[in-house]
Amino acid sequence: MPLFGRKKSDDPAPLDRTREPLPPPPEPGPSGLRTLDDHRDYLLSCLEPLPAFSQHVLDALGLSLCEDVYAPISMPRFDNSAMDGYAVRAVDVEAAGDESPVSLPVVGEVAAGQDALHRLSPGTAIKIMTGAPLPAGADAVVPYEATDRGSSDVRVYAPSTAGQHVRYVGEDVEAGTHLFSVGQQLGPRDIGLLAGIGHDQVLVRPRPRVAVVSTGTELVEPGLELGNDHQIYDSNSYLLAAAARQAGAHVFRVGLVSDDPEQVKQLITDQLVRADLVVSTGGVSQGDYDVVKAVMPELGATDFTQVAMQPGKPQGFGLVGDDRTPMIMLPGNPVSAFVSFEAFVRPAIRRLMGVTPYTRPTVRARVTHPVSSAPGRRQLARGIVTVDEDGTRLVELAGGHGSHLMADLARANALVVLPEDVTAVEAGEDVDVWLLDEVA
Amino acid sequence: MPLFGRKKSDDPAPLDRTREPLPPPPEPGPSGLRTLDDHRDYLLSCLEPLPAFSQHVLDALGLSLCEDVYAPISMPRFDNSAMDGYAVRAVDVEAAGDESPVSLPVVGEVAAGQDALHRLSPGTAIKIMTGAPLPAGADAVVPYEATDRGSSDVRVYAPSTAGQHVRYVGEDVEAGTHLFSVGQQLGPRDIGLLAGIGHDQVLVRPRPRVAVVSTGTELVEPGLELGNDHQIYDSNSYLLAAAARQAGAHVFRVGLVSDDPEQVKQLITDQLVRADLVVSTGGVSQGDYDVVKAVMPELGATDFTQVAMQPGKPQGFGLVGDDRTPMIMLPGNPVSAFVSFEAFVRPAIRRLMGVTPYTRPTVRARVTHPVSSAPGRRQLARGIVTVDEDGTRLVELAGGHGSHLMADLARANALVVLPEDVTAVEAGEDVDVWLLDEVA
Repeated sequence: MPLFGRKKSDDPAPLDRTREPLPPPPEPGPSGLRTLDDHRDYLLSCLEPLPAFSQHVLDALGLSLCEDVYAPISMPRFDNSAMDGYAVRAVDVEAAGDESPVSLPVVGEVAAGQDALHRLSPGTAIKIMTGAPLPAGADAVVPYEATDRGSSDVRVYAPSTAGQHVRYVGEDVEAGTHLFSVGQQLGPRDIGLLAGIGHDQVLVRPRPRVAVVSTGTELVEPGLELGNDHQIYDSNSYLLAAAARQAGAHVFRVGLVSDDPEQVKQLITDQLVRADLVVSTGGVSQGDYDVVKAVMPELGATDFTQVAMQPGKPQGFGLVGDDRTPMIMLPGNPVSAFVSFEAFVRPAIRRLMGVTPYTRPTVRARVTHPVSSAPGRRQLARGIVTVDEDGTRLVELAGGHGSHLMADLARANALVVLPEDVTAVEAGEDVDVWLLDEVA
Repeated sequence: MPLFGRKKSDDPAPLDRTREPLPPPPEPGPSGLRTLDDHRDYLLSCLEPLPAFSQHVLDALGLSLCEDVYAPISMPRFDNSAMDGYAVRAVDVEAAGDESPVSLPVVGEVAAGQDALHRLSPGTAIKIMTGAPLPAGADAVVPYEATDRGSSDVRVYAPSTAGQHVRYVGEDVEAGTHLFSVGQQLGPRDIGLLAGIGHDQVLVRPRPRVAVVSTGTELVEPGLELGNDHQIYDSNSYLLAAAARQAGAHVFRVGLVSDDPEQVKQLITDQLVRADLVVSTGGVSQGDYDVVKAVMPELGATDFTQVAMQPGKPQGFGLVGDDRTPMIMLPGNPVSAFVSFEAFVRPAIRRLMGVTPYTRPTVRARVTHPVSSAPGRRQLARGIVTVDEDGTRLVELAGGHGSHLMADLARANALVVLPEDVTAVEAGEDVDVWLLDEVA
């Protein structure tokens, strides 16, 4: 896998591609702010899935296939035995029983991987192992358990029928069968099937390389001493790096940078060579020190906007540097950053990977207590989903609306999604939720 | 992370630990064969969770915590602003309105990470950024949006109440709070919270190193030419390696080995130095070439048995080599191998990781057509689960009982679990299923 330059095109680049504008952004929604769906769709429309490349099949786990795959061989490739036992003609043992065993001379033996040298003559048996090719002339296998396991002669204690314990050529897969389609995300059983038809390489989209940066002069690296009374530890870059990794990305946690404009520009520029996507947090709001918003327009085409969602209103996006690397600039409050990740970054990672659906599936859950929501905003509230005895999903909110409540965020296992026009939900009503963890 | 010797103890080892017997295996169940549950519990009782070691917090994603974690600091560490705006005394702006703005002199400014040098005098305002410490004397923050954003004086157009837009010390987490318990599997939001309280390292159990081996003279490596008419591609080691990786293991796909006893012994012995668990497929049944069953007793204490399940009846287990490395020996049919992985290997990997529950959660689904099952055997049938409009899970079986049907296995997204005493299920009845993929 080439570390650098994966997205470089063969076309000579214009001299300064950083000056190319973004596509026109969507109009504001009814609240005067951009809707969450519009903003997400806009971001996704500015991203292309990463170019496909050939990958060892085992490394393709979780990746999106970029080719249709047809079976080059039949499976089984040849009629073979499903059991360890004796290949026979069913008619020769049709009278066999516990009290009236049929005795047959054993005229040969065939193991898995061997060619069957012998043709079975009527009235004889050939010892056969599981997976070994069925000798010509045989039409059934008598398993060891129904015999005395004899070597020169075998006694058969049970009748057989034609086809018994025989696996016929192509009954699993016929040569030429269409097995996999473009866009399928490969799981372990797919990997097994691909290997089974002899594929050691498949064309897939790679894991996006995502660089994660926290900005803020107040931030200190975990593990170090807090230097003054008003410093705090950087949690966002850890939170987002872990979430991006879980979403399938290859993550570089770049860590933190102060609010110094030159340092921010240098650090982002340094990442562009190895990143398919840059994610930053902080510095995109209305504050006087919102450095990301201030400096990123110098590095590329950017779009800073306010999205009708809670939390997560201030959002930034850009195509930066000569390669127009996408950069998603999230707000700095940890809860806002995480919710924005779910709303925008996770779909972006999946689009780069070519994995659909881009968004988390919405499921329904019953709220256990009344919930209120700001009018005109899509509310994404932290929730704890449980399943009751009847299999009904219940959800209670975890903590308040504060965007700084990290312990509640860790405790939550879902986001409750309340539409813009909803201001109150009564206990017992059903709401949409995104499940963040596996909930039985 | 030390690659070698992780499980070596300080005690001098007995001269030949391979001769130590296994604990007594469970008695056969009512069918005369060992039950699936008994066999799984026996295997798990022979395994110890891997020793904990300190890991960088970002690398602890998905791992099981081996320490209780208490917050060393409060979060927030200090009262701070939730907005960009002006720190004020609420009483000074209680009369403010659109038509009757209150004007206050701006006597200072404080940014995130700075110490608040000034004490707020009555009747004044201090400009404040999100996250910056609230100056002494102030009890509320007026956001920019409610002001004219003045520099020397600011007009405030809306009243405030004490505490508005203030985040108080400890309201997220109070210092000393118990945040995480031993055994918790860490997700992205946990990683964020750990970083937020300053932890760069945590004590976790590592990913088990799992070596996967396919045995069989008939096997050919995918990507190579099939050499004779009765060779087949090795799919099992790919299937199981991918499944083990998805289950959280660090996987070495060793690949395939012929049925030659010396080669098998050498290959397994070579793996022991780097494996916490060895998984093999093939060679454990009744056949004359079942080499694993034949040679593994020379390398350690082994238990070959028949389990009352379909597929997957022949099963082997051992503690092999001087370190008594656990080895699970699965049957060679791909479907049998996969079902055995789900029944025994995945729980073993989770036990080594210290992640509970060891087994997949069982959920209920309604069968769409009649299902039959062999008496006395736990049936693990491949199924395809869908969710209907009412949210009810439906399941139909994928393919037949044949243990060689890999395409059906790939197509399935669940295993239907039918108890030993069930021989038939009518359409419309509910059954237990293990979900293999995410099903909305």
